[in-house]
Amino acid sequence: MITPTDAFQLLIDLPVPSGSQKIALEDSIGRILAVDICADRDFPPFHRVMMDGIAVQDIHSREWPLAGIAYAGEPVFHLENSSSAVEIMTGAMLPENAQAVINIEELEFFQHEEKPWVRHIGTKAIEKGQFIHQKGIDAPVGQMLIPKGKKIGPVEVAIAASVGISTSLVEALPSIGIISTGDEIIPIDQQPLPHQIRSSNSIMIEAVLKQKGFQTEKKHVLDEPAAMEKILADLLDSQDILILTGGVSAGKKDFMPGVLAKLGFEKIFHKIAQKPGKPLWVGKRSDGKIAFALPGNPISTLTCFWVYFLPWIHQVRWPTNTISVSQLPKSNPNLVQWIPIQFDSNGAHALRNNGSGDLINWASANAIACLPANQEGNELMYFSLNL
Amino acid sequence: MITPTDAFQLLIDLPVPSGSQKIALEDSIGRILAVDICADRDFPPFHRVMMDGIAVQDIHSREWPLAGIAYAGEPVFHLENSSSAVEIMTGAMLPENAQAVINIEELEFFQHEEKPWVRHIGTKAIEKGQFIHQKGIDAPVGQMLIPKGKKIGPVEVAIAASVGISTSLVEALPSIGIISTGDEIIPIDQQPLPHQIRSSNSIMIEAVLKQKGFQTEKKHVLDEPAAMEKILADLLDSQDILILTGGVSAGKKDFMPGVLAKLGFEKIFHKIAQKPGKPLWVGKRSDGKIAFALPGNPISTLTCFWVYFLPWIHQVRWPTNTISVSQLPKSNPNLVQWIPIQFDSNGAHALRNNGSGDLINWASANAIACLPANQEGNELMYFSLNL
Repeated sequence: MITPTDAFQLLIDLPVPSGSQKIALEDSIGRILAVDICADRDFPPFHRVMMDGIAVQDIHSREWPLAGIAYAGEPVFHLENSSSAVEIMTGAMLPENAQAVINIEELEFFQHEEKPWVRHIGTKAIEKGQFIHQKGIDAPVGQMLIPKGKKIGPVEVAIAASVGISTSLVEALPSIGIISTGDEIIPIDQQPLPHQIRSSNSIMIEAVLKQKGFQTEKKHVLDEPAAMEKILADLLDSQDILILTGGVSAGKKDFMPGVLAKLGFEKIFHKIAQKPGKPLWVGKRSDGKIAFALPGNPISTLTCFWVYFLPWIHQVRWPTNTISVSQLPKSNPNLVQWIPIQFDSNGAHALRNNGSGDLINWASANAIACLPANQEGNELMYFSLNL
Repeated sequence: MITPTDAFQLLIDLPVPSGSQKIALEDSIGRILAVDICADRDFPPFHRVMMDGIAVQDIHSREWPLAGIAYAGEPVFHLENSSSAVEIMTGAMLPENAQAVINIEELEFFQHEEKPWVRHIGTKAIEKGQFIHQKGIDAPVGQMLIPKGKKIGPVEVAIAASVGISTSLVEALPSIGIISTGDEIIPIDQQPLPHQIRSSNSIMIEAVLKQKGFQTEKKHVLDEPAAMEKILADLLDSQDILILTGGVSAGKKDFMPGVLAKLGFEKIFHKIAQKPGKPLWVGKRSDGKIAFALPGNPISTLTCFWVYFLPWIHQVRWPTNTISVSQLPKSNPNLVQWIPIQFDSNGAHALRNNGSGDLINWASANAIACLPANQEGNELMYFSLNL
């Protein structure tokens, strides 16, 4: 039996199966870029008009005859007469030879000898270059815009689109097989006999992993070693990681560690000094596949999944945030206790519960707090249950 | 022109199109439950064994002959001889008449007259009821387990599964049509001519909304009022909300407010005293459909989407968290400025940028900070860009 901290340290050193994959850009939020993204042209690609108004060459004049209109999406307008102005729209190419843009709020349009003219009515002097987004000023062609390894957010999506990337190469998310075990477990849609309960662990895990973008495959196996071995072997053909629930403790039908050993998994640890979740078993295989065998009581499953599996798969350290928790149960002299807490105006309070089979009383929990063995105070580190 | 705060207040009062829908339980994380979930049987449904070990009726004895084994998933075991013990596994039904469960770590199995016996070697007295998860103690049949309106997390998924719900009724997420406009915009996969740029606003919006679970449909329209009207009218047949980018400012091809008015939208506001994003237009129609017409410069689009649309659609207030920001630009006397900031060890610093067309220099931004008009200090409220 090892401590939770030691268990987590072993997990930090355990490589998550990796690779890269191409996905549609619109599905890439939150993913990690696997290549640098570089500018395929200057940004902006032309001297770009930043305001609706006019463009002029002679910035010392106050009145100009209008030579035409330049819209966004049109080829460059040639301003031939250096004393004229061109009406321009935001996003248009700056007319050739123009020196400044004057925004529409500072202009008055009028007719002079039946020709259209415009007058500057603003009080500030016109500055050379004003409201012109200079070609290449954001980034010249070839410049690296987003480095490999960056998490993709809205700005990264927009930049990738701007350089013509509609499918992006990102770090692959490992595929995850989810296997529940237990002869007492029946499908959700079936009516249970008195001694049966419906499957709830694997769909809980599936739902969270799906929401986080992982591909999963879900199976149920009975407590029979040969059947377990066959189903696990099949799943290992297609999945990088297995999460198993149940069959990992000290009971006579707790076959999972044996089955995993037979499939070539080497144990990294088995049993953590904690409650719930003591029997957690983690192992790896020489081909890089990883198995997490979680105890099957719903709260044991939830805790091991939340506190060990999720930080591992996301390669993040345990949180360091603490909260003051009232109504704490007594600290156990030997075991770390993971307890449901609900936030309140004073920090949080521990929720009453009936052990690791009691899912119901966790419905009000906002977080899982860590009550260390022999804890004196009530400032506890916690994992938020928000998604 | 109204202030950002007034604009946000108007949005708080604007109802998000609503309804309910059935979705697969495994897709329901983060969604809002539209019905109460009640216990369809007692929780737990039987006196449930909490430990691997034995169950006994006579708790005052120290040794018992073994009468058999009760596994999880088997009908109840009848303990006929009150002086016997039954080997039991976690999750099994408690044998009838058993008074307590003793965990395996406190037991020694032995043979006596060629029959299997077990001895209690623990030092603590056996307590009546120990390690028995009493039928109905978590919740009796009929009890409401999760109220309507609750956000679905892992515990809620597991509870729903436990009561036999494999598809859940949740509040519908409104469907959202995303329309970019602009004659200069071409598809991502095309090679732009010098005066053209690739579409990046609508895929940015689509990617974020998809990641948040919304159904979206995306279109591009040219700056031509009749074409706009037709495409918008078509989209309004199927979509609850439209987000439009571009065509909403003071330019000669800024037709959007007029087209939306023609389609029956009533303006809620147009123009906010802010930079970027001044031309934001929001309107509603008598059938409950909502249109957000965002200015089309990429940073204007991003800011209006992040600071107005997302809080509105999620029905959340603006954040109150502040951060100390260095290298701030000068506060504008009349306009709120939304500025890209990057977190550093001292808080954050403002990023240099070339205006609302400069997507590139936002790639390093962690958040959008609000620099109020005439701000003195440098403690700014901000919206995280993390997803």
